[in-house]
Amino acid sequence: MYSFNNDYSEGAHPRILQALAETNLEQNNGYSQDRHTARAAELIRAEAGCPGADVHILVGGTQTNSAVIAAALRPHQAVIAASTGHINVHETGAVEASGHKVLTRPAGDGKLTPALIREVLAAHTDEHMVQPKMVYISDSTEIGTLYTKAELEALSLCCRQNGLWLFLDGARLGAALTSPANDLTMADIAALTDVFYIGGTKNGALFGEALVIVNDALKADFRYLIKQRGAMLAKGWLLGIQFEELFRGRLFYELAAHANAMAARLRGALSERGYEFAYPPQTNQLFPIFTDEMIERLGRDFLFMPDKRIDENHQSVRLVTSWATTEAGVEEFIRALDMD
Amino acid sequence: MYSFNNDYSEGAHPRILQALAETNLEQNNGYSQDRHTARAAELIRAEAGCPGADVHILVGGTQTNSAVIAAALRPHQAVIAASTGHINVHETGAVEASGHKVLTRPAGDGKLTPALIREVLAAHTDEHMVQPKMVYISDSTEIGTLYTKAELEALSLCCRQNGLWLFLDGARLGAALTSPANDLTMADIAALTDVFYIGGTKNGALFGEALVIVNDALKADFRYLIKQRGAMLAKGWLLGIQFEELFRGRLFYELAAHANAMAARLRGALSERGYEFAYPPQTNQLFPIFTDEMIERLGRDFLFMPDKRIDENHQSVRLVTSWATTEAGVEEFIRALDMD
Amino acid sequence: MYSFNNDYSEGAHPRILQALAETNLEQNNGYSQDRHTARAAELIRAEAGCPGADVHILVGGTQTNSAVIAAALRPHQAVIAASTGHINVHETGAVEASGHKVLTRPAGDGKLTPALIREVLAAHTDEHMVQPKMVYISDSTEIGTLYTKAELEALSLCCRQNGLWLFLDGARLGAALTSPANDLTMADIAALTDVFYIGGTKNGALFGEALVIVNDALKADFRYLIKQRGAMLAKGWLLGIQFEELFRGRLFYELAAHANAMAARLRGALSERGYEFAYPPQTNQLFPIFTDEMIERLGRDFLFMPDKRIDENHQSVRLVTSWATTEAGVEEFIRALDMD
Amino acid sequence: MYSFNNDYSEGAHPRILQALAETNLEQNNGYSQDRHTARAAELIRAEAGCPGADVHILVGGTQTNSAVIAAALRPHQAVIAASTGHINVHETGAVEASGHKVLTRPAGDGKLTPALIREVLAAHTDEHMVQPKMVYISDSTEIGTLYTKAELEALSLCCRQNGLWLFLDGARLGAALTSPANDLTMADIAALTDVFYIGGTKNGALFGEALVIVNDALKADFRYLIKQRGAMLAKGWLLGIQFEELFRGRLFYELAAHANAMAARLRGALSERGYEFAYPPQTNQLFPIFTDEMIERLGRDFLFMPDKRIDENHQSVRLVTSWATTEAGVEEFIRALDMD
Repeated sequence: MYSFNNDYSEGAHPRILQALAETNLEQNNGYSQDRHTARAAELIRAEAGCPGADVHILVGGTQTNSAVIAAALRPHQAVIAASTGHINVHETGAVEASGHKVLTRPAGDGKLTPALIREVLAAHTDEHMVQPKMVYISDSTEIGTLYTKAELEALSLCCRQNGLWLFLDGARLGAALTSPANDLTMADIAALTDVFYIGGTKNGALFGEALVIVNDALKADFRYLIKQRGAMLAKGWLLGIQFEELFRGRLFYELAAHANAMAARLRGALSERGYEFAYPPQTNQLFPIFTDEMIERLGRDFLFMPDKRIDENHQSVRLVTSWATTEAGVEEFIRALDMD
Repeated sequence: MYSFNNDYSEGAHPRILQALAETNLEQNNGYSQDRHTARAAELIRAEAGCPGADVHILVGGTQTNSAVIAAALRPHQAVIAASTGHINVHETGAVEASGHKVLTRPAGDGKLTPALIREVLAAHTDEHMVQPKMVYISDSTEIGTLYTKAELEALSLCCRQNGLWLFLDGARLGAALTSPANDLTMADIAALTDVFYIGGTKNGALFGEALVIVNDALKADFRYLIKQRGAMLAKGWLLGIQFEELFRGRLFYELAAHANAMAARLRGALSERGYEFAYPPQTNQLFPIFTDEMIERLGRDFLFMPDKRIDENHQSVRLVTSWATTEAGVEEFIRALDMD
Repeated sequence: MYSFNNDYSEGAHPRILQALAETNLEQNNGYSQDRHTARAAELIRAEAGCPGADVHILVGGTQTNSAVIAAALRPHQAVIAASTGHINVHETGAVEASGHKVLTRPAGDGKLTPALIREVLAAHTDEHMVQPKMVYISDSTEIGTLYTKAELEALSLCCRQNGLWLFLDGARLGAALTSPANDLTMADIAALTDVFYIGGTKNGALFGEALVIVNDALKADFRYLIKQRGAMLAKGWLLGIQFEELFRGRLFYELAAHANAMAARLRGALSERGYEFAYPPQTNQLFPIFTDEMIERLGRDFLFMPDKRIDENHQSVRLVTSWATTEAGVEEFIRALDMD
Repeated sequence: MYSFNNDYSEGAHPRILQALAETNLEQNNGYSQDRHTARAAELIRAEAGCPGADVHILVGGTQTNSAVIAAALRPHQAVIAASTGHINVHETGAVEASGHKVLTRPAGDGKLTPALIREVLAAHTDEHMVQPKMVYISDSTEIGTLYTKAELEALSLCCRQNGLWLFLDGARLGAALTSPANDLTMADIAALTDVFYIGGTKNGALFGEALVIVNDALKADFRYLIKQRGAMLAKGWLLGIQFEELFRGRLFYELAAHANAMAARLRGALSERGYEFAYPPQTNQLFPIFTDEMIERLGRDFLFMPDKRIDENHQSVRLVTSWATTEAGVEEFIRALDMD
């Protein structure tokens, strides 16, 4: 069984493992107050062109999302997200567990727009309703699509005009930035958002999300929030070492580019054979539409997730490639398409 | 200016005020552990035909809703409501502030159905998502509509089959039960729900919502929740005395019937003149559709709330009658309809 | 049985009831946006000498305490209180339920001091611990004692020097300000605290606590917090009318002075007979020490609460007088002291 | 500089690193639903003699503590801990952030007793106060002391008699179980508690705490809580592999025994030289008392944490040894004691 289940089915890129092994017996300060984390933060600030940003590296995405939101909002304030947003669907109510409502709108291709945001603002006008104060987006999105620079600029402007923080979940930022369809840089993202993060878990690290707090107003006491949310790793240098390795050269981008290249090969083969996609195939997540019979057959040799029913005989499924996806795995899948 | 803004624009029915005055210098035990509250609870249990129920009288609806939900749910559990549900829209995120997600579906006429509930259940299947555990409905609903007995039976069955608590917000239960379109009794409601409440605030009391916990599983330690949520009134007998007065005879029903009768007169006059309604006019809340010009003109002499835009020239507005609405006020409004 | 259980055993002063009756059929705006509340706020601002303060009137103390604390603190911040503080002991964890730790110190006579506050600050130094940000005190305290002006000035200075908000719970502020031992005015309190409230429930109103937010930094969006915490009364003018009545003349002070006078008479009688007190008897709460036998005997004719065991044969009990305590009740108690 | 700062200053035991490297390119199911985690759970159940227990492996202690407490308690319930308990002091209010009060008592040697628990129970008697429902202890404690079997049996009995869950934080369970002063086995702990965990972070793993839920009543839906609290690791097998390695042989005990042996050597050298300890030296945390001058001098070559001031010239400090502490490091420290 070859797995296209997700981009976190394997461990870490060998260079990352090696860096961990080489530093294993160093004595380091705990709780991310070590030199590796400091250097990783420097590298990230440089890459994002924001020398004044605060960088914190956390273990996972859910804890990062809920710590950022809890740190930024007062009790009566809410965060706006696409209905498909990770915080709305797949975090077991972590945002609500910290007391805040997620205000949602169904969003084409999983992307929020200024019009959708204004719709939410117009519906929340007094103290009997929650007060929208933050916008949450993902790039790439939960369905593999991308924000263009123009789209992100428009969102950024809308947020600034309306006193909303803009928070970008970059759990799959590598896949976004290395997509051929992308016209954003990490520096653009730093310039256009108030806070964002750079995913390691889904891009070749064992784990780790590097949070970049650009806006001074969101910086105060953030380490308290990390600790309180159970998100402060005792051996925090394990996070620092991994991001040092990802960003001391171009490894972060190379790994994501590989994932995208593997997805592009699958996409090409699928398109050639006339398969359609439930959402635009832009990064390392593809949602091809197959007959139920084909899904059953492919499922004998490959792992992948169901997406949704399209019609009586068809469903879309999710295929995810990663830094570790092999050409052999991809070719085998393509061959399987032709085997009936 | 005569106000049709809502059903809580005046104080209390004179008999209630009188009962408060007559008992004013009695020394009573605090925190609802007095004989008036005990007697009110007895009267309510009798009226609802549920001798084993626990009755607690709280000051207001938002605190009752959030105490019930916080008492019933574990941290990862969620409550299902219509999108228009009061807990979803008009309580400033009180449910989320206690840690729970509200799962919503747009609902025709503001009413949930088993089909909508099953839709939510089907979408929440594992530990990455919240776990639906309670269904919240209102009768009458936020838009003045009613559940029929058949509808409530179907909801009740659906909840029991799926391990969901059924919670009925009866802030306007009087208006529901005395509507000509209604076929439910309070005893039916007690039999078909796990917990419900009987609104006093909007039916002639100064304030007060009488919560009836029917299901034993929801009874434990409820007074702790009341206290913790800041909802325990020091002079709790003030609540007891009011509900004693509402239920020692038929006052509760008489006041609601008056409100409905005043609404019926308005509805008749509006229908005769060809006005349509945004939602079925069944209780003391009417949502007639007027031209913008008419709304502007009526607004000079009457208070009422806007509802929503229907088309370029038309909006619906909300007219609410109460136990205190006068025939003179209603007639004046009807006359104003003809004055152009 | 005559009750010295507490100062909220009776309804309201007749002038307050009368004001409620006289305005009963007025149509008022809901949610405290009415002219009575506006006028009460004006009267209170004048009395407190703080024309720029925001005044909100809430139904009860627990909801006021938890709304203020939730509004003021970020998630990792904590409030400092005496171990005997109401928020620490008698609110079923309402502060913790909103996410905040209460940091306590045992305090002589129930009063915090700068030294105790500095002790807490010294113990909370980094992000592994909560961050103290507010100080909560009560005047009069839970055990009937008073802050002097010098003491409150010292606390205020200590708070300002250390970036702490000073919050004064005045559920029994009337009893404090009319005590012969008091040297503070309401204007002093407004000048020395960031936020405080004036208790109505325990001083002759049916219910109601008038919150005065003096510090601009604590004002933003407070009505959202009131609503979210379930503390916004639909018929908010009921609160406004009561405080209008308390403050349009001197009724607030007269009622408290009566309670203190009744306590003073009891205290005098007890002292003459050689009884001692567990805490200094300064306001309307007295804690005389009796033999177990005496307590048993007095308990046949009077209601009062146990306090604590002093030695094998002695306990202190709590006697509370109120605006409604009668001279006859007091005399009867004094006679009972001599009857053995 | 050699560090005795804590037992999590180095990475992981080489066998653990090797196991991670060997399995690095395996494709595994995410979220701890992999075969390594399943096998680790089996090994732990066997070691603890509780074949019916649920085992979940989480990344860190704070998240484990707060997930367990949030899962077990209803909103009005509280957890009892020693004043020195980790959840009370060093988790930035994580328990309160999930809504629960921590009820504390100063405890000799950091250990709770039935008498202290009964004291708390006696003080919490009605719905105006939180309801104690869980007891939290650590073994070894935050100050390096141990519970004897008799002490744990007495606590267990007290908890069962009073309807309290007993939760044991075993972040340093290895150090406890391998101390010469210990008479408990892991099976004893499973038999005497309702839920406990086995620390990996401080005993040679990169990170990881293996939670063992023994009592059926605490098992339901625990994975929802893990996910909601941001504590579900995407690549959960990283946890499984580490505990597989710790428990497929005796590595868990060997590592802890080494830490204790290094501490014993330090303790011996200190005692011989007449130094005293602030708390009984029983495990891998020692709290020797030094002159300020000595502390200053030792601080030039060694890292360690201050503990508390003993008198004008003396303080206690904390020395911690670990699985990675070298004999050379220990000898160097001992030599430094003699160099003045």
